[in-house]
Amino acid sequence: MDLYSIKNPSFLKSYSNQQLEDLAVEIREFLITKLSKTGGHLGPNLGVVELTIALHKIFESPRDKLIWDVGHQSYVHKILTGRTKQFDTLRQYKGLAGFPKRTESEHDVWETGHSSTSLSAAMGMAVARDLKGEDYAIVPIIGDGALTGGMALEALNHIGDEKKNIIVILNDNEMSIAPNVGALHNVLGRMRSASKYHWVKDEMEWLLKKIPAVGGKIANAAERLKDSMKYFMVPGMFFEELGFTYFGPVDGHNFEDLFENLLYARKTDGPVLIHVITKKGKGYHPAESDKVGTWHGVGPYKIESGETLKKASTGPAWSKVVSDTLMKLARDDERIVAITPAMTVGSKLEDFKKEFPDRLFDVGIAEQHATTMAAGIAAQGMKPFLSIYSTFLQRGYDQVVHDVCRQNLNVTFGIDRAGLVGADGETHQGVFDIAFLRHVPNIVLMMPKDENECQHMVNTAIQYDDGPIAIRYPRGNALGVNMDEELKTIPLGSWEVLEEGTDLAILTFGTMIPIAVKASQQLKEMGLSIRVVNARFIKPLDEVMLQQILNEHIPILTIEEHVLQGGFGSTVLEFIQENGFYQQHVERMGIPDRFIEHGSVNKLLEEVGLTTENIIQTCIQMIPKKQQRA
Amino acid sequence: MDLYSIKNPSFLKSYSNQQLEDLAVEIREFLITKLSKTGGHLGPNLGVVELTIALHKIFESPRDKLIWDVGHQSYVHKILTGRTKQFDTLRQYKGLAGFPKRTESEHDVWETGHSSTSLSAAMGMAVARDLKGEDYAIVPIIGDGALTGGMALEALNHIGDEKKNIIVILNDNEMSIAPNVGALHNVLGRMRSASKYHWVKDEMEWLLKKIPAVGGKIANAAERLKDSMKYFMVPGMFFEELGFTYFGPVDGHNFEDLFENLLYARKTDGPVLIHVITKKGKGYHPAESDKVGTWHGVGPYKIESGETLKKASTGPAWSKVVSDTLMKLARDDERIVAITPAMTVGSKLEDFKKEFPDRLFDVGIAEQHATTMAAGIAAQGMKPFLSIYSTFLQRGYDQVVHDVCRQNLNVTFGIDRAGLVGADGETHQGVFDIAFLRHVPNIVLMMPKDENECQHMVNTAIQYDDGPIAIRYPRGNALGVNMDEELKTIPLGSWEVLEEGTDLAILTFGTMIPIAVKASQQLKEMGLSIRVVNARFIKPLDEVMLQQILNEHIPILTIEEHVLQGGFGSTVLEFIQENGFYQQHVERMGIPDRFIEHGSVNKLLEEVGLTTENIIQTCIQMIPKKQQRA
Repeated sequence: MDLYSIKNPSFLKSYSNQQLEDLAVEIREFLITKLSKTGGHLGPNLGVVELTIALHKIFESPRDKLIWDVGHQSYVHKILTGRTKQFDTLRQYKGLAGFPKRTESEHDVWETGHSSTSLSAAMGMAVARDLKGEDYAIVPIIGDGALTGGMALEALNHIGDEKKNIIVILNDNEMSIAPNVGALHNVLGRMRSASKYHWVKDEMEWLLKKIPAVGGKIANAAERLKDSMKYFMVPGMFFEELGFTYFGPVDGHNFEDLFENLLYARKTDGPVLIHVITKKGKGYHPAESDKVGTWHGVGPYKIESGETLKKASTGPAWSKVVSDTLMKLARDDERIVAITPAMTVGSKLEDFKKEFPDRLFDVGIAEQHATTMAAGIAAQGMKPFLSIYSTFLQRGYDQVVHDVCRQNLNVTFGIDRAGLVGADGETHQGVFDIAFLRHVPNIVLMMPKDENECQHMVNTAIQYDDGPIAIRYPRGNALGVNMDEELKTIPLGSWEVLEEGTDLAILTFGTMIPIAVKASQQLKEMGLSIRVVNARFIKPLDEVMLQQILNEHIPILTIEEHVLQGGFGSTVLEFIQENGFYQQHVERMGIPDRFIEHGSVNKLLEEVGLTTENIIQTCIQMIPKKQQRA
Repeated sequence: MDLYSIKNPSFLKSYSNQQLEDLAVEIREFLITKLSKTGGHLGPNLGVVELTIALHKIFESPRDKLIWDVGHQSYVHKILTGRTKQFDTLRQYKGLAGFPKRTESEHDVWETGHSSTSLSAAMGMAVARDLKGEDYAIVPIIGDGALTGGMALEALNHIGDEKKNIIVILNDNEMSIAPNVGALHNVLGRMRSASKYHWVKDEMEWLLKKIPAVGGKIANAAERLKDSMKYFMVPGMFFEELGFTYFGPVDGHNFEDLFENLLYARKTDGPVLIHVITKKGKGYHPAESDKVGTWHGVGPYKIESGETLKKASTGPAWSKVVSDTLMKLARDDERIVAITPAMTVGSKLEDFKKEFPDRLFDVGIAEQHATTMAAGIAAQGMKPFLSIYSTFLQRGYDQVVHDVCRQNLNVTFGIDRAGLVGADGETHQGVFDIAFLRHVPNIVLMMPKDENECQHMVNTAIQYDDGPIAIRYPRGNALGVNMDEELKTIPLGSWEVLEEGTDLAILTFGTMIPIAVKASQQLKEMGLSIRVVNARFIKPLDEVMLQQILNEHIPILTIEEHVLQGGFGSTVLEFIQENGFYQQHVERMGIPDRFIEHGSVNKLLEEVGLTTENIIQTCIQMIPKKQQRA
């Protein structure tokens, strides 16, 4: 099969099992080769090659709805639905998305990115289907990691009760991004080693066969017992209890096993859960033998050795700076506890885990629980540090408001991947957190300009005792500046002037600092004097410094790698209004009111107009206005 | 026992069971009498009288930590911890809170209000306790309704795996606020009727006793089988699977049964779940026989008859206006589906349920699932209406962003209880939703000034096809205005002038409209001409009208019953800045940056300065400023 010639999955209908096996080999080779150049989610996709082929052979997409939970395992699906040739542009600006996208194909019926949404989507579609009297299969494919997210459990509870025809594919690879945790994981483990159950069942049947010989009352009792036992004997009893018919465990790399179960499921009334066992990274040794999640999502690599091609990086990863500092502090301060929702690797907490195995809690994909658990730890006088991606903290918003901030508990939030994240695209951009946090009473919100300030901010947060405090930091690598030996404490709500200037004041923070400084320096050469302020505290503002600037009556430009609506600039506007400086000229630069798709961060910054050149232009436009007014 | 003389629960230690029974009677009488005057959560508290007494007898609060999930069932706990005399001020301004409050008592170790948080809090406290090498019991008390909230399930999954010593009291009264739904509810039902399990167990044992007589191989098989069976035989197998030791079902109104299980649980290593069966409303006939949740939380009532004393209300309940309009529309539009997370009664959806039983989905306490399920329904071309309290929509924030708005799906949000809610206090105030929604791309956000506009807005939302749209409306009763016979469509993003005026323009919406109009009329008598604009669309703004006002260069006053940070006024400031009107004088009135406690809405409005008098003062102060500038 020429993968490039595939238009849609209909060709699979006539394929023999041997042809399908060959196709699986070709797809694996294609993925290993292509992703070695572009990077991407290799491990998850190698694991679902046979499963995806089987789904498209048995079901009729897009009439039947395949819903890919998280969605980073949809590459095989993309190949089978005619998108092979776009893989050269995978996760690149205007290129093929790394997740399902409805604009890309009619076969992408639901978009994902965050985990654990597929079951709720499936239930919604089933409601619509049944009310409209339509007839098609709805097939969410969810990993064992995603299954422990609260909303997936809520949906399981609802689906099992409503008895809708939904075929849940539980793709159990014993990993989410990192190895899975949680009691449900143990439950699945027992199901996987189903031999024990089979043994009980076999033993039981053998035993019961003997009993009728004893006759009479015993035989009757045995018969009744047999009926009752059936209920207990199925390996998927946990799901059966919740109202699902359980099929499995199924070998996810065996077509016959897959077909048999999928066909049977299609004929079964009510909700079905097919427990499919797959091997993440299957068919590529470095990925297959990965035990921690390194091959979950990768950059370019050498195929032979599996060696990843390091990008020339300027400084250490931001996450690493944070976790190293936390580790340093944890050596002297026994109150420090780190919490991560399934992101030990992504948030670079492996070393912390090694040094303090009892003080690192990976709670699985469970952001709500992680947030309130941190509050519980703080309530007992400890120092919880919740390391969480900006986009995933969205899941914990109510817990931040209701449990942490309302009780004014001393939780530190390490908001990782704040700002544009690049290749993962619109579902992962961390561009809303200021807007959804700054209106919450009691919270302190800050962002460092470089890794040196970052370590001091981590220290500042840990030394802070008065309530919740958050440090946001970007994805990727820091600037490569020198690190102070001694950790300092930054005065709460203090900004600093990085470049002096009298024509205009730029108020900005984090990733925008270097480009603002660069713009200021270039503008100086043009004879303009631009002050650059590191507005490292977003809440509270440095009211003293802001008052001083306002008293100078120079224009103010706020810049943020964050949405403009309700962002930092908006905070500045509020302050100006509240303090009666209603003749102050302000302009705000930031991300406009739309979702930002995937692409390199630099490309995206260009798209939204957050470059040095844009800043220079804006400053030039603003200064004449000021002079006209004077 | 004189309940008023209780200082702390230590007196219980020496009490005989008969004395405890007498105490229970007294407490019930006290609650029925007191709440008949103040109103409050009668049903939940009558259900836990014996349970609370038993917990305080067996455990040592506050050393041992009692964590009340949701917390509206903490009245008995408040009596036993010395707060009897404060019940006259229950849920009133500066009075006794209806939920646990750490400032009230050292026995309130964790504050609640929203459901399903207690298990995460317990896990956090257990982490702290064990790292500090301390030794005390941690006892979350959670209802069967709250247990199905996603974060409770996340916590269950984590606790069961970590094997911490936590004693979960599952208070199973077969109701949350409304009768419970969901598969887990069915699981609990099977556990409650444990006789089936006991039957199997008894039958099994009888059978196995017979078998050894057969001898040899069969005897060995039987023995092995017996071992394996133990696992399956316990009624709480579902929880045992998740790593808990299950005790129950326990009669929650029988002290001996309670003591035996609590004492045994205290000695058990690892997490324990005690399944306690209670009767909501126990001991007061009208509440006990309640099947829908009317007696969950009540206003004042006549003790003899159980008749609730109706407040003189001006108009129909806002929720009722919304649900009636939705019902009217649903008769002609088969695409309309209503969804509620356990609030069929609160959101007045009973009639809708009666008329369209197949088109009303109560998903239980599961706001995340509810939101994404609505998205799934919309993805298939139906018209989901998600009726949800403002404060509970906080739980669905990520789903609003990631599933609904990002996919631009046509979901209507009926945001109930928007604004200050009064007696329920800080955990329930609906004062953040504009700030957490307005920065999300694609959403339309509106609020009606009266019930007539409200019905037109519901219609407008249903006729709208372009993406997500939200109507927020307050708790309580509407104004009593005349209702148009025909439903109209309000042009998207259109405001209306309610009072003409040339000295100042008030931009406001919803509940603030009547007091703004009143202020305007009083100011007219003082010779000032105040325009009042019904800014019914919060997103998008009426840009044309706003531009016109800005061109007039009159001062603008924004008023909102919502936090000032990131709220409507802030949107107006952003627009003014973006459009270069940087000499515009604006003042904003709204809720300051702190949590607002319980009290009547009018008291709270006074506290935060949102009264007619405040508006008049602000307008007077603003107008001279304008004249000075001119």
